[in-house]
Order: sequence, then structure tokens, then C-alpha cells
Amino acid sequence: MKEDQDPQLPSFDFKSFMVDKVNAVNQALDSAVPLRDPVKIHEAMRYSLLAGGKRVRPVLCLAACDLVGGKESMVMPAAYALEMIHTMSLVHDDLPCMDNDDLRRGKPTNHKVYGEDIAVLAGDALLAFSFEHIAVSTVGVTPDRIVRAIGELAKSIGAEGLAAGQVVDITSDGLTNVGLDHLEFIHVHKTAPLLEAAAVLGAILGGGHDEDVEKLRKFARNIGLLFQVVDDILDVTKSSKELGKTAGKDLVADKVTYPKLMGINKSKEFAEKLKSDALELLQGFDPEKSAPLIALANYIAYRQN
Amino acid sequence: MKEDQDPQLPSFDFKSFMVDKVNAVNQALDSAVPLRDPVKIHEAMRYSLLAGGKRVRPVLCLAACDLVGGKESMVMPAAYALEMIHTMSLVHDDLPCMDNDDLRRGKPTNHKVYGEDIAVLAGDALLAFSFEHIAVSTVGVTPDRIVRAIGELAKSIGAEGLAAGQVVDITSDGLTNVGLDHLEFIHVHKTAPLLEAAAVLGAILGGGHDEDVEKLRKFARNIGLLFQVVDDILDVTKSSKELGKTAGKDLVADKVTYPKLMGINKSKEFAEKLKSDALELLQGFDPEKSAPLIALANYIAYRQN
Repeated sequence: MKEDQDPQLPSFDFKSFMVDKVNAVNQALDSAVPLRDPVKIHEAMRYSLLAGGKRVRPVLCLAACDLVGGKESMVMPAAYALEMIHTMSLVHDDLPCMDNDDLRRGKPTNHKVYGEDIAVLAGDALLAFSFEHIAVSTVGVTPDRIVRAIGELAKSIGAEGLAAGQVVDITSDGLTNVGLDHLEFIHVHKTAPLLEAAAVLGAILGGGHDEDVEKLRKFARNIGLLFQVVDDILDVTKSSKELGKTAGKDLVADKVTYPKLMGINKSKEFAEKLKSDALELLQGFDPEKSAPLIALANYIAYRQN
Repeated sequence: MKEDQDPQLPSFDFKSFMVDKVNAVNQALDSAVPLRDPVKIHEAMRYSLLAGGKRVRPVLCLAACDLVGGKESMVMPAAYALEMIHTMSLVHDDLPCMDNDDLRRGKPTNHKVYGEDIAVLAGDALLAFSFEHIAVSTVGVTPDRIVRAIGELAKSIGAEGLAAGQVVDITSDGLTNVGLDHLEFIHVHKTAPLLEAAAVLGAILGGGHDEDVEKLRKFARNIGLLFQVVDDILDVTKSSKELGKTAGKDLVADKVTYPKLMGINKSKEFAEKLKSDALELLQGFDPEKSAPLIALANYIAYRQN
């Protein structure tokens, strides 16, 4: 079943919605990181940033803002800042001293093209840029909400967010007695934090009430774990060409994954459960405005790469 | 001439002032990064963060805040956040793929103790932490000033700040036709940005007028370049033991430095000129409140490591 054929959503054209939003985000990213001096680092940043990712985090941020009644202009810098951070984490995770990956989004990884030194610095610069753009380019939002958004975003990246997930992931390689709790910790910290930040930033900057912010936080946590479970499934069921990145890496690295712990079928059932739990959290919102978020959850659940 | 014997400052006890401020900053850093789960990354962050640096950036930030009439509590999170960022840049610069340094602040570098993967992640987490702490822990400051401060800080780190300096530095190694302009670009971008951010954040968060913010910006740019010129001089005149880091590295790496381009004596004269230009910018401020900044400029000019 494809996301744009979901029987629950006859009237919502998810494909057009995504194309629209992804184009807007890509244009904003293109302007936000111009090819200026020193050229090499800007080139390296643009190489990974404009490599055609799925832009799930920016789109989630824009959709959450819309859900709480905000305008797109309030949240666009935060939306593309999320992609900068996501790209930073990919560039650093791909380094030889981490996952040592040669292929990403169907292209050679950043350090393969620009060298490890530039890849480290390009990542650092992207991380700093993300905060700069939210602080300097956000318009139509009160400063107290901008400060709150920056606090949430920063928390999602650091030693209790993305970095924590990656550390525990690295230090778990080859461990044999890893259980589901431990795996969930890794996954919740590796993918969910930025998705959570995306939804929460959209709601905060869009002017949402605290209650809505918290509902969207839970929704994002669910689809964050869903994203990772599906990633694990794709790693064992798809080829490198289909994925646009090296397939079967988890098996080679002896990584703990959901398919390894509970088998492919149970993993798919678990994904289904996470998806329906997420959708339940959207009940009570304007159905028309929640359509993109429902479609996004379906997209994550049923994506093929 | 030692900084605490400067004849212009008979009444200001710089040593006590520094001990006081450094203790306050170290205590704040110790609480800001507790040893929590996942332990390994927090341990790595604390290892480099609490390794006993000179804390020049935090002290400059506190002094700038005081100069414009602000309270220490307004600016403490920003002050220690600057040290987090400085530490991040040291940890990443020391990596084998960059400067490949084994010794820092008299101890083995972060990646030597925790591995390159953890060193990259600890740096990323410190960078994120710095923004989190400014956003979440700053008290007694209006949110618009916090947003402005975050924008300034972020700019100082990214592809027009620290990262730019490091990129141009790396790509200049072994070049033979590098002139003073090029060298100044590297130095201004490698050290000055964070010192500039320190002074500017102190002034902004302390409630300073725009005019004072800009005066302090220029002051910091001057002592930033001064800092780097003195660093170049120390690298060729001191031993590794005296410096607490590997000496003579610039020569080995065939790096362009001020002593190489203009000789030791002319480099010292240049440093003297930068110092007096910096001090001129402080005229017009309350002499008692500018004493720490004057002493700091002298300290940077005459430090021995």
C-alpha cells in the first residue's frame, strides 16, 4: 500500500504536498548556504545539504506549524535548520572513525569527496548555522518563543539526544546480550530527537498552546521510533541501489536491530502498532490540517528507501 | 613585565580577580555537564572541559558584562557556553584528520583517551550544549537580547568564523607564497571570533547600548589577533613542557606564522601595537570597571603559555 493511496485520505494529495514543501525547503537551503569564501567548506556543506534528502524533518516542522494555526514564514528558518542538523549528523556519522560509510543518498559521502578534516568542519559549521538562522532569520514570532525553540532544538542534538544515541549505538556493536529496552534507547535517541524537535519547534514557533506542543511531541516520538524500525527492516530487505546507501551494513557490523531481535514479521507488526498509536494522538485536531501529518506517518511506515 | 605588575594598574589585583572568576566558571561548568547516562560521552566532555584551561573567553564575557553595568548572573551561562565551544574546537582540531595532536593542556588529547568517534561526538554535544544552556539557563535578560546573543555566538563558530579559519589554515599548510593578509585572515577567523563573541555577548546580555557593544567588538578583535600572534611567538620560543602542548608544531607542519613572515622581533612589536590599539578603545568607560579588561589585554600580550 502506498502512502498516496491510503483509503482514509481520499482527498489529500500527499505527493503534491511533499513536492511543494520539499521545493520550498530546498530553495531556502540553497539561499541560506551560498557559495562564498572560504569556498571549500561552503562547497562541502552544500554538497551534503543539497544531495536530495527526503526532507522529512522540515516537512514535519511545517506541518506542525500549520496544524496549530501558524504561518509558514514563522517556521521556515527552523524547518531548514533541522535539515542542516540532520545533514551534520549524517556527515559525522559517515566518518571512517564512526560508521565508515562510502555512500549516502546515492552519492559518495562527504569525507570521500572533501577529506575527513573538511567533513568534520563542515558538520560543525552546519550545526552552528542552524542556530544562527533560527536566531537571525525567524520573523513574526515573539523572542520568548524563539528562545524556547532554540532550547528544545539544542537539547535534541546533544548528549541527551542524537549524540547519546550514536554513542550507545557505537558502544553496543558486537554486544550479544542487548535487549529490546536497550535497542529502543538507541533508536529513540538516534532518530526521534530531531523528529521531536521538528514537531515541537513547528508548534512553538507557530504559536501553539502547551497542550498541543506536548501532543505533537508524543506523535513525533512515535513516528521517530517507527522511522528507525522501518530503517532496520529496509537494511535487510533492500539492495544498496534501492536504498541509495550501503545495504546490509547492520548485519556486517553485527549491529543490534529489530529484525535481529524479533524477526522481520514481528518488526513489521511493531511498526504498524507505532503508526496507529501516532495517528491516535492527532484526533481532536482539525482533520484537514492534520491530513499532512497522517500522510507523513503513513509515508514513514511504508517508504521503500 | 608581568601583567600583575603593570605600572598603569597599581590598584587592581588581576591574579585574585582571575582566580575568583575562573573558580566561578569552573564550578558552573562542573554543574552544567554532570556525569549522567550515557556515561562515556559525558566523561569525554568533562575530561576536556575541566582540564584547566585559562578561561580567557568566559572571563572576557564576565568583564564585558560588568563594564556595561550588567550582573554576573545575567551572563554566566553564556560565559561558560563560550568555554564549551572553545573546548569543542580544540577537541575537533586535535583529531588525527586535522592537526593530529597528542597533547593538550598538558594531558593526552580527547581522542587519545576516548577514541576518535567519541571525540567527534563529544565535540558535537558540547556545541549543542552551549546553545541549550544560553537558551534555558540565562536569567534576568529579555528574550530579544538572548536571541541576539545566540545569533552572534552561532555566527562566530560557523563557516564565517572558527570553522572558516581552520579550513583556510589546513588548506594553507605547505603553501610558500602566503602573505600577511592571508595570515591575518586565518588568525582573525581562528581565534578572534570567539573572543569577539565573548565580549559582544557580555555587552548584549549585560544590557549594553549598541555603541558599547561595537566598541567591545573592536577591542576583542584586536586582542584576538594579539592572542594568535603571541601564540605563534610562543610556539617557536617555548618548550612543550612550558606550553602544556606540543611546541614547534608550526615549524614541523610548515605552517605560516608571524615569526616566519616577519621575524620574532617584528612580531613582538606588532603584538605591542595591537595591545595599545585595544586599550585605546576602552577610554571613555569607567576606569575601575575597565581595569579587568586592560589587565586581560596585558595578560594575553605577556603570557608565557
